Amino acid sequence: MIEALNEQERADALDGLPDWDYDDARDAITRSFTFENFSEAFAFMTQVALMAEKADHHPEWSNVYNRVDVLLTTHDAGGLSARDVEMAGQIDTLVD
Amino acid sequence: MIEALNEQERADALDGLPDWDYDDARDAITRSFTFENFSEAFAFMTQVALMAEKADHHPEWSNVYNRVDVLLTTHDAGGLSARDVEMAGQIDTLVD
Repeated sequence: MIEALNEQERADALDGLPDWDYDDARDAITRSFTFENFSEAFAFMTQVALMAEKADHHPEWSNVYNRVDVLLTTHDAGGLSARDVEMAGQIDTLVD
Repeated sequence: MIEALNEQERADALDGLPDWDYDDARDAITRSFTFENFSEAFAFMTQVALMAEKADHHPEWSNVYNRVDVLLTTHDAGGLSARDVEMAGQIDTLVD
């Protein structure tokens, strides 16, 4: 059973994820990605999808043309967990 | 230049798309799709993405695990156009 991060753990995690915002209402982290066009955006989504399926941990996300908005939270934990922090770090490696 | 459908054209189009809802605020059509799991949902998204890229007409959409919400409107036309109706019909062929 995965547990949600406590306040201190969350603060530490967010320090390590400067490009992600904390969504207080959802106890989630979010990041928006902008690409050259739809093809690039969907290529990114495909990489994230494979990563998510492998980890059995899936984002909530939306796409409008060249933009992809990602939200990570852990439903089983009722909020942000270490699994989200790990996935955010992995996603960052795709673009940074 | 593609033009938005007028009221009668829209009514006729929606008659042919019984699984789609009309979003008045956006002058758009929407449909939610539910699959067995994330893998099935993303397989569908990939098919739609290829279709969209080929047509150079892209959905606004979101995904949460096995669910995909699709919204179609034509930004260049300022609302729902024949391009959306055509794409909705194509998307329907993937699942029906």
